[in-house]
Amino acid sequence: MNKVNSNMNKEITKRDENFAEWYTNVVLKTELCDYGAVKGSIIIRPYGYEIWEKISDILDAEIKKLGHKNVYFPTLFPKSYLAKEAKHIEGFAPEVFQITTENGEPLADPLVLRPTSEVVVCTAISKWVQSYKDFPVAINQWANIFRMEKNTRPFLRTSEFLWHEGYYFDASGEATHKHTKQALKMYVNFFKNILAIDVISGKKSESEKFAGAHTTYTVEAMMQDGRAIQAGTSHYLADGFSKSFDIQFTDKDGTLKYPHSNSFGVTTRLIGALIMVHGDDAGLVLPPKVAPTQIVIVPIAQHKEGVLEACEALKKRLQRAKLRVEIDKRDVTPGYKFNDSEMKGIPLRIELGPKDIENNACVFVRRVGRNANGHMNKETVSLTDVVKSAKTTLQEIHNYLYNNSKQLLAKNTVEVHNFNELEDALNNKKFAKVSWCLDPECESTIKAKTSATIRVLVNGNEAKHNCCVVCNKKAKTYAIVAKSY
Amino acid sequence: MNKVNSNMNKEITKRDENFAEWYTNVVLKTELCDYGAVKGSIIIRPYGYEIWEKISDILDAEIKKLGHKNVYFPTLFPKSYLAKEAKHIEGFAPEVFQITTENGEPLADPLVLRPTSEVVVCTAISKWVQSYKDFPVAINQWANIFRMEKNTRPFLRTSEFLWHEGYYFDASGEATHKHTKQALKMYVNFFKNILAIDVISGKKSESEKFAGAHTTYTVEAMMQDGRAIQAGTSHYLADGFSKSFDIQFTDKDGTLKYPHSNSFGVTTRLIGALIMVHGDDAGLVLPPKVAPTQIVIVPIAQHKEGVLEACEALKKRLQRAKLRVEIDKRDVTPGYKFNDSEMKGIPLRIELGPKDIENNACVFVRRVGRNANGHMNKETVSLTDVVKSAKTTLQEIHNYLYNNSKQLLAKNTVEVHNFNELEDALNNKKFAKVSWCLDPECESTIKAKTSATIRVLVNGNEAKHNCCVVCNKKAKTYAIVAKSY
Repeated sequence: MNKVNSNMNKEITKRDENFAEWYTNVVLKTELCDYGAVKGSIIIRPYGYEIWEKISDILDAEIKKLGHKNVYFPTLFPKSYLAKEAKHIEGFAPEVFQITTENGEPLADPLVLRPTSEVVVCTAISKWVQSYKDFPVAINQWANIFRMEKNTRPFLRTSEFLWHEGYYFDASGEATHKHTKQALKMYVNFFKNILAIDVISGKKSESEKFAGAHTTYTVEAMMQDGRAIQAGTSHYLADGFSKSFDIQFTDKDGTLKYPHSNSFGVTTRLIGALIMVHGDDAGLVLPPKVAPTQIVIVPIAQHKEGVLEACEALKKRLQRAKLRVEIDKRDVTPGYKFNDSEMKGIPLRIELGPKDIENNACVFVRRVGRNANGHMNKETVSLTDVVKSAKTTLQEIHNYLYNNSKQLLAKNTVEVHNFNELEDALNNKKFAKVSWCLDPECESTIKAKTSATIRVLVNGNEAKHNCCVVCNKKAKTYAIVAKSY
Repeated sequence: MNKVNSNMNKEITKRDENFAEWYTNVVLKTELCDYGAVKGSIIIRPYGYEIWEKISDILDAEIKKLGHKNVYFPTLFPKSYLAKEAKHIEGFAPEVFQITTENGEPLADPLVLRPTSEVVVCTAISKWVQSYKDFPVAINQWANIFRMEKNTRPFLRTSEFLWHEGYYFDASGEATHKHTKQALKMYVNFFKNILAIDVISGKKSESEKFAGAHTTYTVEAMMQDGRAIQAGTSHYLADGFSKSFDIQFTDKDGTLKYPHSNSFGVTTRLIGALIMVHGDDAGLVLPPKVAPTQIVIVPIAQHKEGVLEACEALKKRLQRAKLRVEIDKRDVTPGYKFNDSEMKGIPLRIELGPKDIENNACVFVRRVGRNANGHMNKETVSLTDVVKSAKTTLQEIHNYLYNNSKQLLAKNTVEVHNFNELEDALNNKKFAKVSWCLDPECESTIKAKTSATIRVLVNGNEAKHNCCVVCNKKAKTYAIVAKSY
């Protein structure tokens, strides 16, 4: 907080004018990230990385509750591994970074930088398991991932990103499928309770599923420009990878069988998602649970006796309650500090000056929303109860953000009944809920004509009396169609 | 703990017979790691990774206390960056993995996989700082590192490893140099208080210092075979990298200046070091502070009524005190469990059977050492005070291990007065304390004739009345000479 940022003077483009530019302005000006030297790479700066630390700490505990233990697999592996699973190499080969030479000599089998780790994990598991007693195997890895991308954007799509990748192997397909859905549910809860984002979850279509998966479940979030972000996926791989990688075990009955497996992950793109869901024209709006600084104390007339001391005392009380607090003591005007804390998305600002101290009070200013009594976002709060008030206020800000996200999603998801309505909806930045016959050709038509895609299948049974939005034949499911990042 | 490991039946080679083989046996049999597909790479398995989680969690907090914030820089950067610092490229170029082609086309400037991150950090800092007000900049990164190595060994030297790398930039050389030494001190304390390892710290010789550094400080630990491990380094870079990367700032007096910087790091080789310092012929011996499981409860006559329930109750009490506890409920004999927990290096075993329960007691068996009263490592402990007893015992085990390490180092470090004594000491697996004139030619002679190296300079002033162990001219410092991993 010591540095007076020279970027501060530049305006942030308004979201309505150019949403993409607004986003880039925000991530650079708030110093969440900067560009790296290699195309599509970013440097995650302290303010951005602290958000990732909060996200990963919380998720790590949740993943461990699902029974997973952390491991670390090598980044580099022979390209021939990818080829063992035909669909997998088809999906990933165009995107992989390759080391093709060593000391100037060409390598017969180039090394790839992991675009995902199923193949190295499966190769190891085939050595590690022998008996039904060895299951379930539940592991997880926090790692960097490499994919060559054409259209990149900070956090959302980068040539290198950070993620976790959970892997689960079990003798029974049923148990594995159940675990796949538990991982998905963990994500849905995480989005709601931690990131304050309402999401749509469900199955991917056949063409959109993970390369080599039996079923891919996805969590899709709506950005303020009506585009979707695939924010997390959980893949049921059935016994496909086990067969490709020759993973076998002796079952209770003495016969050799292939285990079932799944994989699931979320990435640093979550940082991009939460910005695009919650941000506003003043800059970032950070959900309190992952905000590096939850509360900024701004001293008023800070040169006056007792003001900074009172701020320090307040900070200590709030910190003892495990709240993340900073005092902005910089030698700039309070107004400058207000703008800065707003741009940085700090959920709660507390102003404290000589008059407040006299009255045993301080002023709470919420970054967004109103309190439970419908009062405006500026309110006088007694210093006696300030810790309790701060906690309540942060929870209310969380709730406000979640409800906002819920309303955004509800308001901008429209059921359409024909192709014209579908195009209209997409042009108006909506998620279109279509009835679909499940024919891949109809899916291709949608993509070719609108550049939007089927993001997720929902409410299969309810759509069965409808007609497909493309071919007009009997529909088999509802699906959400949207443009996406 | 559910799996009956089929490796268990194979013996571990004795340390005296073949220390290297003992080490490999231990890391594989205890499932700390396995080999990866690429030469010199390893998979860190759950039991190994949990040790790294403990190490990195504790170090992360210490690094933050030094004022550092975490960041993430891209793994890939143009090879030309390395060349900006002449000594740096000389040091690292032979070891870097390179991406020389993209989509089959040769790259004019190949990409390298980071062998360390000074060059990308400095490139960014040159954009981020302008004024003396921007200092200090203190950042840190937890990341994977890639170096092509000829002689590899699990954890100790691998083609990919995990580490933290701290970077600090300041307007003043003095402040930066002070910070460099603070980082070193943090490591020394960490080795003592967390890993229970006594170390020698000090400067590296000119030829052994980090490529591009002004001064390299090192922490050297002695393994049971008398070899040294460079366990941590802290490099004062002065303004060398700032000049190479054109980092400048406007000082208070309005003039442009180059900041000073440092970098410091420790790696997953610490896992190898603690094994080689503490392990014994029965297997691992883990220091309690980083042991994934600190206490294993072994039920005696576990089929008898009340035994498992009593074990669960005991586990809960110990867990509430934040101790890491497991119950070994497997359907194998207690003797098998004892051996297994010893091989895995679990610091404390608690045996609990029907008779113990009757007597409101349990039996503590330490993996190593005796208690404060000099009693053998098997003792009856009242269940009433069991939590307190367990905590005390774990601390005593830590102290025992540290004192062991201290004695190992003291007993096996010998001052030598001529080259014959030096050779004798090295042949007898000792650290040789030599007087040295600081001439690089004498250092080269030592290396050429003994294959040992000068690990660290110590007690400069005390050596000034002595003669150099090689050339017999006036000595300027003591130095520790040892073979190393």
